[in-house]
Amino acid sequence: MKIVLVGLLLLSSVLATAQEVLPSWNEGKNRTNVVNYVETVTDENSSDFIPVKDRIAVFDNDGTLWSEQPAYFQFFFAVDRVKALASQHPEWKTEQPFKAVLEDDMKTVIASGKEGLLKLIMATHTGMSDEEFDAIVIDWIKTAKHPTKKVHYSELVFQPMLELLDYLRANDFKTFIVSGGGIDFMRPWASEVYGIPSNQIIGSKIEVKYEDKKIVRVPKVRFIDDKEGKPVGIHYHIGQRPVAAFGNSDGDFAMMEYTEANKKYKTLQLYVHHTDAKREWAYDRKSHIGKLDKGLDYAKIHDWTIVDMKNDWKVIYPFELKK
Amino acid sequence: MKIVLVGLLLLSSVLATAQEVLPSWNEGKNRTNVVNYVETVTDENSSDFIPVKDRIAVFDNDGTLWSEQPAYFQFFFAVDRVKALASQHPEWKTEQPFKAVLEDDMKTVIASGKEGLLKLIMATHTGMSDEEFDAIVIDWIKTAKHPTKKVHYSELVFQPMLELLDYLRANDFKTFIVSGGGIDFMRPWASEVYGIPSNQIIGSKIEVKYEDKKIVRVPKVRFIDDKEGKPVGIHYHIGQRPVAAFGNSDGDFAMMEYTEANKKYKTLQLYVHHTDAKREWAYDRKSHIGKLDKGLDYAKIHDWTIVDMKNDWKVIYPFELKK
Repeated sequence: MKIVLVGLLLLSSVLATAQEVLPSWNEGKNRTNVVNYVETVTDENSSDFIPVKDRIAVFDNDGTLWSEQPAYFQFFFAVDRVKALASQHPEWKTEQPFKAVLEDDMKTVIASGKEGLLKLIMATHTGMSDEEFDAIVIDWIKTAKHPTKKVHYSELVFQPMLELLDYLRANDFKTFIVSGGGIDFMRPWASEVYGIPSNQIIGSKIEVKYEDKKIVRVPKVRFIDDKEGKPVGIHYHIGQRPVAAFGNSDGDFAMMEYTEANKKYKTLQLYVHHTDAKREWAYDRKSHIGKLDKGLDYAKIHDWTIVDMKNDWKVIYPFELKK
Repeated sequence: MKIVLVGLLLLSSVLATAQEVLPSWNEGKNRTNVVNYVETVTDENSSDFIPVKDRIAVFDNDGTLWSEQPAYFQFFFAVDRVKALASQHPEWKTEQPFKAVLEDDMKTVIASGKEGLLKLIMATHTGMSDEEFDAIVIDWIKTAKHPTKKVHYSELVFQPMLELLDYLRANDFKTFIVSGGGIDFMRPWASEVYGIPSNQIIGSKIEVKYEDKKIVRVPKVRFIDDKEGKPVGIHYHIGQRPVAAFGNSDGDFAMMEYTEANKKYKTLQLYVHHTDAKREWAYDRKSHIGKLDKGLDYAKIHDWTIVDMKNDWKVIYPFELKK
């Protein structure tokens, strides 16, 4: 009788633990992969044990921690800033791609290509101190709303990924963001939203200079933290090869491959596959944003974890929990 | 009687606390400055209270956390590497500044100036993967000895500064190194010696590229983390203005000025002044290394803390404690 009782207690404790972590993830192969990995590498008696100092986990942001459709949210920030600054720039009424932005002619904006996008970024992201830029970003993230979802952009983070970040940190992983997005665009809000300190957020960089006791933003690209740039950003900012990497596109492939090639430790690679046209967006091989093609083939062959958003996640966004 | 007893207990507790922190620091104005600062900004009832997330402390390395005479220790590393690699480079027998290094003709090496030094750095710090370079640095730090002190270089760290790092961390400060020295030269050993994770170590950078699943070191300077470069390095790596800055030379001035200009919080600036010709080295305004001139004048006027190594520190190096 006593043994049965102990057994029941143990069972209920195991069940309780199983339910506590990753509550928005459906049971299945992918959730099991993640939990097995974490339990194995944090088990001191396992040959795959990883010491705390080497538990480095890297996350892409756009499409991995929050949505990225119909365009990167930083692009909407630039658009909103062009509109806010238009009265100080009468020349934008005739100058492309500003003219198109002011006329909500997104087709022409997109047709302006990389060069056009760069013009928008430079006009809206530089010329001020870093502290002034922080304040602009914070104001935007608190007020601006997504064109079709009609909620604040920071509400479009993925609830299951927030739980995954928490779960990893509860197991003494240090979590980093390694994003193609702007490092200074993310830091003012991402730190609070994801629980990641600003010095663990890595991204693309605008040039800055030190002047008059301030950091001033200069209209020049310094570093693109995408594709082969991601391992380079990891090298400079972290200085250690990660053991776990989370992405959603071919732009994350180099970072995940670099992680997989860690010779010292067992690793985990996970792709978030956008399969839910109803609750989020469905896209992969042919998408103009967050294209996942080469990476998807490699992931399948190499047994990486490929999260099927539609089937693996009970909810997508935190606000769905409140319903 | 009861009150007296409580009073005595309180007093002894206060004394115990006072003795526990910074034990290698002599009582006096400078030690008091540091302790008062930390006690004030961590006191929730003080108007100068700083929330934990903003307790960012930045430390120079050469001359602030360890010695830097008669030359930067990274220079000795380069010299030792040239000697170790000489058999693979017969051309160095006639090519300067390699010839001078191999002949221990330091006068000619120094006369080769910045260009010569750069040649030595590139020949010894690049051409391999980051993991291979880490192994080389670790081997050197474990075996090489300082030319006059005859101990390992990592034994030439300052005991009072190790205590200061511990004291700040015990009070929930996040400690960073912001050094003119090479980021990849420091990380393999500094993490353990100073208790600072590799992602909190910032320094000058050699170019790298991602190739064949590895980070490969390329013979080109990417970033000099000195003078006005220090606030720039802080911006990219930390993304927050520090509240406390520790240096020893004019090369640290911009970082300390940037910290002092923090408008949100009370700040602390501390210069380590090399005044002990007997136990360490004495130098400041006219030194070829770690020159402290403009910074010393400014520090005196602006009431920064100027540590007098000879009088403020009971011991310089950890090995003196064991005597």
